[in-house]
Amino acid sequence: MTAHDAPRPPTAGADADRLARVALTWLTEPGTRSVFRLVQRHGAVDTLALLRDGGACDNALRETVATRLTAGDPVAVATEALERADRLGARLVTPADDEWPAPVGDLRRLVLHGATRKVDRETDPPLCFWVRGAWPLAEALDRSVAVVGARAASGYGLHVGTELAYGLAERGWTVVSGGAFGVDAAAHRGALSAGGLTVAVLACGLDRPYPIGNTALFDRIADTGLLVSEWLPGAEPLRPRFLIRNRVIAAATRGSVLVEASARSGATQTLRRALAIARRAMVVPGPVTSAMSVGAHELLRENPDARLVTGLAQVLEEVGRIGSDLAPPVRGPERTRDQLDDEAATVLESLPRRGVTAVDDIAARSRVAVRTALRKLALLEALGLVVRHADGYALAAAGAARRP
Amino acid sequence: MTAHDAPRPPTAGADADRLARVALTWLTEPGTRSVFRLVQRHGAVDTLALLRDGGACDNALRETVATRLTAGDPVAVATEALERADRLGARLVTPADDEWPAPVGDLRRLVLHGATRKVDRETDPPLCFWVRGAWPLAEALDRSVAVVGARAASGYGLHVGTELAYGLAERGWTVVSGGAFGVDAAAHRGALSAGGLTVAVLACGLDRPYPIGNTALFDRIADTGLLVSEWLPGAEPLRPRFLIRNRVIAAATRGSVLVEASARSGATQTLRRALAIARRAMVVPGPVTSAMSVGAHELLRENPDARLVTGLAQVLEEVGRIGSDLAPPVRGPERTRDQLDDEAATVLESLPRRGVTAVDDIAARSRVAVRTALRKLALLEALGLVVRHADGYALAAAGAARRP
Repeated sequence: MTAHDAPRPPTAGADADRLARVALTWLTEPGTRSVFRLVQRHGAVDTLALLRDGGACDNALRETVATRLTAGDPVAVATEALERADRLGARLVTPADDEWPAPVGDLRRLVLHGATRKVDRETDPPLCFWVRGAWPLAEALDRSVAVVGARAASGYGLHVGTELAYGLAERGWTVVSGGAFGVDAAAHRGALSAGGLTVAVLACGLDRPYPIGNTALFDRIADTGLLVSEWLPGAEPLRPRFLIRNRVIAAATRGSVLVEASARSGATQTLRRALAIARRAMVVPGPVTSAMSVGAHELLRENPDARLVTGLAQVLEEVGRIGSDLAPPVRGPERTRDQLDDEAATVLESLPRRGVTAVDDIAARSRVAVRTALRKLALLEALGLVVRHADGYALAAAGAARRP
Repeated sequence: MTAHDAPRPPTAGADADRLARVALTWLTEPGTRSVFRLVQRHGAVDTLALLRDGGACDNALRETVATRLTAGDPVAVATEALERADRLGARLVTPADDEWPAPVGDLRRLVLHGATRKVDRETDPPLCFWVRGAWPLAEALDRSVAVVGARAASGYGLHVGTELAYGLAERGWTVVSGGAFGVDAAAHRGALSAGGLTVAVLACGLDRPYPIGNTALFDRIADTGLLVSEWLPGAEPLRPRFLIRNRVIAAATRGSVLVEASARSGATQTLRRALAIARRAMVVPGPVTSAMSVGAHELLRENPDARLVTGLAQVLEEVGRIGSDLAPPVRGPERTRDQLDDEAATVLESLPRRGVTAVDDIAARSRVAVRTALRKLALLEALGLVVRHADGYALAAAGAARRP
């Protein structure tokens, strides 16, 4: 978020809604269908009041809430979480915010056939997100692809995951993954190597990203992309939370690519969730002699809608809009101008009509910090308006046409 | 063929039909649609007379026939071919023979969408087969699976091809392939290692099996399985013939498994032909980083009916009749008895009700050569009547029940 689009001070009602959403997330797990439906009908504030009074309609939920209430006052917990997030440089995003990613609302339609376990009922849309990083969440996720897979990936899986993510990022696509070891980390790293945007959706508090071994990676992601979570700061990465989290990865992206998965891997569930809400589900095959491809092949065999993909071109074909991904991703002039914030527009205007300009020079010409310039240039590149070179940036044909 | 089911001396009419079928194969390429349709309507003898008189309805065919006729008299060529086959220990099989494999008749239904090349019109059933090897052709092909793939197979492809063929042969399935280097040879060898039945369908005369580097393999195949061709002895392995041959591999088997294929490989065409006549088309995926799996992945992407398979169990699931391949392949008593020739019946009767008997003993008890005993035991095993052990054979439960 830039200074230009900082949110106006929220009203008291809006504040109460935000607190209530945080409190509800703490009282019950995100995605709990009955809670989401209550919030839809009565709003978060009234739902919170209802649950605190023991008014949940199903026994399991009433019990969960009662147990939680013995641990603390939900509004106090939520207030503290917001303060903690503030210290962390993280922000809360709710559906009232411009940067709320609307596509996650499709999770309302998520029905898992043959679902029997509790976690399979925690599939409704999130009540709120915690976000760390400068990009507006919705914008970062607008043109995004999930690249997920096995933690114990083979060299093959790591190679393919890295290459795919690199290629997607290079073409202006945001790479979304879960921040785990193996394919997830390879995907984040691939996108980072391309100077692209990557989003890690976590299953725990943003102040304790898991696994700890990826801490340096999480810092790099927060620096140029986004760390996102539904859970309050301090929340532990409990096992069921990974599956609950997976629905967000599936819903927030245009499609999910599975690169290696052992039998019954959690990553295959991301793909099943993607299929259940009509997102593209893409699977990279592997040697049948590899245990790390068993889950991938199972998914392809069991789901006629899952698509076998062998490389970047086929992924782009699945997620791209017709014509927009074979040609450079140029958009209509109005559309593009609308997406540019003032700083991005200034950076674009600072570029000379011809030749490559170093990032330092661009920052100086447009009077923004180098880091801001880099971020805006990445956005302009994603929009097909500038082209990255080894020693700086140049206007793309579309960018030149857009110049005043 | 055993002494017991040797054909009765053919009548003059039957002889003329056989000669005419050979002559027609020589005059035009096998599978030529217009020739097959003429034979269906008027018989081979009259069709031959018609073509010799320049009566072919299309110009291209008339020209082909005219060119051929300058090279020799078709009946003389056919007569010589039959003599040559006799010296070679090969026989001619026509639809009049008991051992004619009826399923190849399904090729009448073969229509290739978007077919433009001449070879794509040579898709009709064969007029005759040349066969070298002791098994009746139809019986050998009754429970068969094709395992085909790249000549320049990788270590992965050779491994998977060998393993699949070994497993299929061990379960009593005949492994059919094209005798080429790479996956084809691996498939034949895998079946031979399991002591199973394998059939090589060639695209040239049986006296000059191609490639020459596989000569020792072809001899082993002829020894325990079958070498099959539509072409007259002496026929060269011309390039288009491989594709014409592929339709037979597709039609004569219950399904075809593709193990590795580069882009636009001939092996993928076998699978397309299988799909076009409602045979099972199965594809083994591989690393997307391997050029040798590009054709396999293409096929899976382009054909919703092609099935990804990762191993023997999944192949058996596709080609097996329900229940018959999880349980031992026991058939109804009448059916099984019908399929036993006198020697096989004698071998079965020689086995004691309990315990394992060495092959030498079985041969001595049933008064047949050891080699014959081995062949009949393989048949009995395929029928689920005997079980192979390291040191001999024992009656299976079904075999004991079938004993007089």
